[in-house]
Amino acid sequence: MSAPADLPLVLLSDRIGPLTGWETGIAERVGCRVEMRPLTTREDIARHAPGARVIILGAVEPFDAATLDRLDGLELIVRRGVGVDNVDVTAAAARGITVSNVPDATVEEVSDHALVLLTVLLRGVPAAHVAALAGQLAQARAAVDRSRPLSDCVLAVLGAGRIGRRLVAKAAGLFGEVLVVDPFVESVEGARVVGLAEALAGADAVSVHAPLTPATRNLLDAAALAAARPGLVVVNAARAEIVDEPALEHAVRAGRVAGVGLDVTAGVDRWRRVIAAGHPNVLLTAHTGGRGSVAQQSLRRRCAEQVVAFLRGEELDTVVSPRHSTG
Amino acid sequence: MSAPADLPLVLLSDRIGPLTGWETGIAERVGCRVEMRPLTTREDIARHAPGARVIILGAVEPFDAATLDRLDGLELIVRRGVGVDNVDVTAAAARGITVSNVPDATVEEVSDHALVLLTVLLRGVPAAHVAALAGQLAQARAAVDRSRPLSDCVLAVLGAGRIGRRLVAKAAGLFGEVLVVDPFVESVEGARVVGLAEALAGADAVSVHAPLTPATRNLLDAAALAAARPGLVVVNAARAEIVDEPALEHAVRAGRVAGVGLDVTAGVDRWRRVIAAGHPNVLLTAHTGGRGSVAQQSLRRRCAEQVVAFLRGEELDTVVSPRHSTG
Repeated sequence: MSAPADLPLVLLSDRIGPLTGWETGIAERVGCRVEMRPLTTREDIARHAPGARVIILGAVEPFDAATLDRLDGLELIVRRGVGVDNVDVTAAAARGITVSNVPDATVEEVSDHALVLLTVLLRGVPAAHVAALAGQLAQARAAVDRSRPLSDCVLAVLGAGRIGRRLVAKAAGLFGEVLVVDPFVESVEGARVVGLAEALAGADAVSVHAPLTPATRNLLDAAALAAARPGLVVVNAARAEIVDEPALEHAVRAGRVAGVGLDVTAGVDRWRRVIAAGHPNVLLTAHTGGRGSVAQQSLRRRCAEQVVAFLRGEELDTVVSPRHSTG
Repeated sequence: MSAPADLPLVLLSDRIGPLTGWETGIAERVGCRVEMRPLTTREDIARHAPGARVIILGAVEPFDAATLDRLDGLELIVRRGVGVDNVDVTAAAARGITVSNVPDATVEEVSDHALVLLTVLLRGVPAAHVAALAGQLAQARAAVDRSRPLSDCVLAVLGAGRIGRRLVAKAAGLFGEVLVVDPFVESVEGARVVGLAEALAGADAVSVHAPLTPATRNLLDAAALAAARPGLVVVNAARAEIVDEPALEHAVRAGRVAGVGLDVTAGVDRWRRVIAAGHPNVLLTAHTGGRGSVAQQSLRRRCAEQVVAFLRGEELDTVVSPRHSTG
């Protein structure tokens, strides 16, 4: 028995598919049709999204103002994750479209991911592993010999949202000191709030957990990296555009940055070349910081709950409000 | 001005050289000659050690009973590190030779090293990195998708000496539960003391921090690994012989062990083959768990202090007592 065509249409971006019991379960709980369609590009959206009342999407599907103009019946966009920089939230609000996200389902995973990248790079393990496998004992020792105990090291966390604060909580017992940079907070338990320049001058490692906004784009640029303590480890599990990657590459090649961990990057080729040029203390993951067996289920469940609540006319507690541009 | 030949001779094994100001400083503080010589094999020792009153050595120089019999004037052996399994402590005591070690200079480093190996392997990062560099997005995701938050994971620590207890302290705030296996302790703050079988049945990851003794040789053997929870991560930063590496290889190839981190190994070739066979979640370091810029200075300083104290006739507080064999 197929659902009647006049039921509300709920779309899932096929980039974050497949359809599982969590999504099809929405139709079992509230009258609607649930389908998976290509929504990765503006062309995909123009072709497949019209008619949808609800769309569940990932981190990159481009829902800008022009795209939203073509989606007359759209009432709800659910971002299956935290960052909504791929959705023009202000334009959506102006068109009466609600935007919600799942801000807490992956907090443990992303903060874990950042912590393991930070600590394993500070310890020099990736470089030590490469040398040990190649039988280069002197290099394997040298990779570790430059490290200091974590309890002597200073960690700087850029962004004190849910993930940044959770990272601070985990790191507070391991590091000698944790610094936080966030213009919107005055204090964070377990850390000292400072400016970016002070953080970089004092930190052995820095981890990015800010949203992508005009104010954070290229936050870690050539000038910032030049002012950092030599031997810095840089980890980015937020958005690639917050780090000026050509500047970061330059700092690695110059020996000023000793380790790089990127869960997000503007391009893998750059780092493949950097590693091949003799800088093995670089780790790349494929925007999987928020993934894991628990997180995947939790994200799907939370999205489904939001869609059901919305279609039932209930209020959502995860609505993303438009923010005034700082640019 | 060279030192008179009748001054006490202090030797440093050239394996752990070079001579630095810490060692030459011994001669400045107390009348003696300090030299670096090859002491890595029984033949080296037979040739170069006679005449020494004090010998500073590393983790592998074989000072067994037969070797000690040839070293008439020897009064003190200082192990620049923790484990003294390469020194026959009972035979030394019978010959009036004092054996001392430096038990605490590397506690932070080794426990850091184990923690980073454990957590990065639980997160699947080494496998994700290899896949990301190769442009294999599905594999990069799969490597991380099998992970669970650290706060859901159980860690088993084998051995509650200084390093094991320090690891427990660091892990207690990160893991869901920490188990300790140690027949000589009844309780450890931050952990639950259990038997080996219970630990392996319940743990997501296990880290070895026991001394090498007849009772711990092949402690993690085929039977132990077969009884462990599927998906186990195994880390060894103690002594290679505590893990049955052929059995561990078999468990990795069978998919029962999901990650391996070895700071000590009976052979790198085995793991090179395992990695090449499609198991990239393996990290090797080159017995550098205790190394680092702080530790190296601290180890040298502590050894020098012990030699000076001994030659001045003072009592040492780090004497290693003979233990009765359990074999």
